[in-house]
Amino acid sequence: MSPSTFQAMWAALSPVGRDAQTGGYRRFAWSPEDHQLREWFAQEATARGLELTEDRMGNQWAWWGDPDTAGPGLVLGSHLDSVPDGGAYDGPLGVVSALAAVDALRGAGHRPNRPIGVANFVDEEGARFGIALAGSRVITGLLDADRARSLTDGDGITMAEAMRAAGRDPDAIGPDPETLRRVGTYVELHVEQGRALADLDAPVAVGTDIWPHGRWRIDVPGEANHAGTTRLADRRDAVLGLAGVIQGTREAAERRGCLATVGKVAIEPGGVNAIASHATGWLDARGANPEAVRGVIQDVTAMARAHGGAVHEESWTPVTEFTPDLVSRMREVLGGIPALGTGAGHDAGVLAQYGIETAMLFVRNPTGVSHSPAEFAEEADCLAGVKALATVAADLTGGER
Amino acid sequence: MSPSTFQAMWAALSPVGRDAQTGGYRRFAWSPEDHQLREWFAQEATARGLELTEDRMGNQWAWWGDPDTAGPGLVLGSHLDSVPDGGAYDGPLGVVSALAAVDALRGAGHRPNRPIGVANFVDEEGARFGIALAGSRVITGLLDADRARSLTDGDGITMAEAMRAAGRDPDAIGPDPETLRRVGTYVELHVEQGRALADLDAPVAVGTDIWPHGRWRIDVPGEANHAGTTRLADRRDAVLGLAGVIQGTREAAERRGCLATVGKVAIEPGGVNAIASHATGWLDARGANPEAVRGVIQDVTAMARAHGGAVHEESWTPVTEFTPDLVSRMREVLGGIPALGTGAGHDAGVLAQYGIETAMLFVRNPTGVSHSPAEFAEEADCLAGVKALATVAADLTGGER
Repeated sequence: MSPSTFQAMWAALSPVGRDAQTGGYRRFAWSPEDHQLREWFAQEATARGLELTEDRMGNQWAWWGDPDTAGPGLVLGSHLDSVPDGGAYDGPLGVVSALAAVDALRGAGHRPNRPIGVANFVDEEGARFGIALAGSRVITGLLDADRARSLTDGDGITMAEAMRAAGRDPDAIGPDPETLRRVGTYVELHVEQGRALADLDAPVAVGTDIWPHGRWRIDVPGEANHAGTTRLADRRDAVLGLAGVIQGTREAAERRGCLATVGKVAIEPGGVNAIASHATGWLDARGANPEAVRGVIQDVTAMARAHGGAVHEESWTPVTEFTPDLVSRMREVLGGIPALGTGAGHDAGVLAQYGIETAMLFVRNPTGVSHSPAEFAEEADCLAGVKALATVAADLTGGER
Repeated sequence: MSPSTFQAMWAALSPVGRDAQTGGYRRFAWSPEDHQLREWFAQEATARGLELTEDRMGNQWAWWGDPDTAGPGLVLGSHLDSVPDGGAYDGPLGVVSALAAVDALRGAGHRPNRPIGVANFVDEEGARFGIALAGSRVITGLLDADRARSLTDGDGITMAEAMRAAGRDPDAIGPDPETLRRVGTYVELHVEQGRALADLDAPVAVGTDIWPHGRWRIDVPGEANHAGTTRLADRRDAVLGLAGVIQGTREAAERRGCLATVGKVAIEPGGVNAIASHATGWLDARGANPEAVRGVIQDVTAMARAHGGAVHEESWTPVTEFTPDLVSRMREVLGGIPALGTGAGHDAGVLAQYGIETAMLFVRNPTGVSHSPAEFAEEADCLAGVKALATVAADLTGGER
């Protein structure tokens, strides 16, 4: 591979969905920006003579070799969509690196002993319809097609309507074992979403597992009343109660060595001169140790109950281990680079749950910032990532099978 | 007055805009419910032979006697609109009591030496367009007509469009000195919005003043980041910062003997798995002592600044004193009943600022709850309120002028 391959692709993607004010990206599933990114992917596949297919959910697969006759193959990939005001790297770095790795393998005269595919998963972030990893979840059956179709965005548009507006048939979506049968191994390269590699002074790591994580709704009741006339002592203020629970949640997470975040809040009735009758916070909690995460939830539940409230579990995903043999082999062929777990969900985790041999590569992010315009990777580290991905691909598709 | 007059009117209003689930009311300006309430008022005026007029803003005035030739007159009244899921008494008790007081005066053969009017002010709560007291503020010039017309409701409908849909001419609204010239004295009866009268074991009080009050926006910045991957120590979480300021605000209010409430919050970007980049809380603060309120704001500003944030004043209204001679005269004629200040805004305060001789009466609310279906007054206390209003009106329109 020449660096120019990577650079040219990166430059082509750079303006798509970029906000001129913040420098952040808004690339939501089935939007015009998404369409533009999909067209770009199709053109890159065609330009390389890769065979482009789309599965029942619209995930894009570009194959070097025929996975039906010579498969299952090795797939490299990630996604092109973003969170609101997201960074440039989360997703696109994996897709661009996969295509660049194919270029590098071809440039080196590599003749793979099984097909190599490049994948672009749709709607990984769930920014528009609220459910992350929809593209991989639907084809693996982990997300029900009816439920997916009926999800609505902030404007009340269902996913079915959005897909139809984008020229797709929403009735076609559902489990797609034919597509998944082609995938023997999946390796997803991703920008790191923390600062572990910066601290380790290393450009690339192998991903070992996705931490157990979940989502909970914290409800704190109050008593509606007039803000200008009700004595402080007579109040049951739901906002004040939730504020205390939020602070206590952080303390519990510190004490137990987990991550816990309240990033979304809803207040009823929400008037400036109204003491709130109800406050809801959504808690995201994760950690390497599931018992510790459960402990945080117990603490939060006790605090909510002290205000007459409750905590409801909306989702819980146990630890997802990537394939240990694959992880070991990749570390070995890459010269003993670091191994990292991650708190973020990825399509690789969904495919691992489905039973596919899976691992990840992480590229150093010196800011440690993710889901923000401040997300960053040095070009030299990106190229090191491409090289690592190509090395892994050559190893996994070379020699005897 | 016979109690049946009051009861019949109360029964007629009871179903209008009532939510069957909560028992609360949704009576918003220029809505079908509002139209029904205005029609009711017009019929009650006509049934009594009162002359109904509407001013440039659509406030309704029903006159016993001609205020242009024999005025200025004494006006009794309040409003019929509500907050979302509001109580039955806030507003309607004043309008119904005013009509019942006219009945009582006539039943007793009173012959007023100047006209007596009954007023129904529009859009007192500001529930639909966000600005309270719009009816009295526009006709006194305290709210600019252009600004009022361009206010939007939650559906993006402007007040001008809403007025037009209700059959009114929004181009006509503006200061209305001709209407205000007819008002020599304004007495507004209102359900108490706290528990002072319950504690004093008295059914009715005279209102002395409206506390100084204001509205501030608290902005706390954070750093957008991924909730699943960012170490706690590396975070600048705007939600956590605002939670601390909200708790500190309550403590400052307790320390300084004021009321302070955060009833509305906005989080950016507001995703469940996103550390917030910005959190905004709106603070309502009031108290009998303006220096104490200002002290709370200083405390809150210091806390916000400690998080890199800021506090912006959105409004500030100094204390509004009702006319001291009128307050004394009313207390005297009512046998030395209690006098109370209030933290809530009222059209009476706007008319007082305009320079009209003004006072209020408060009727005991044993729950102390306001702006909620739990707001309540015993019928005996309501009738005591009507009697007090009639007594005051007889005193203010009897004998030599």
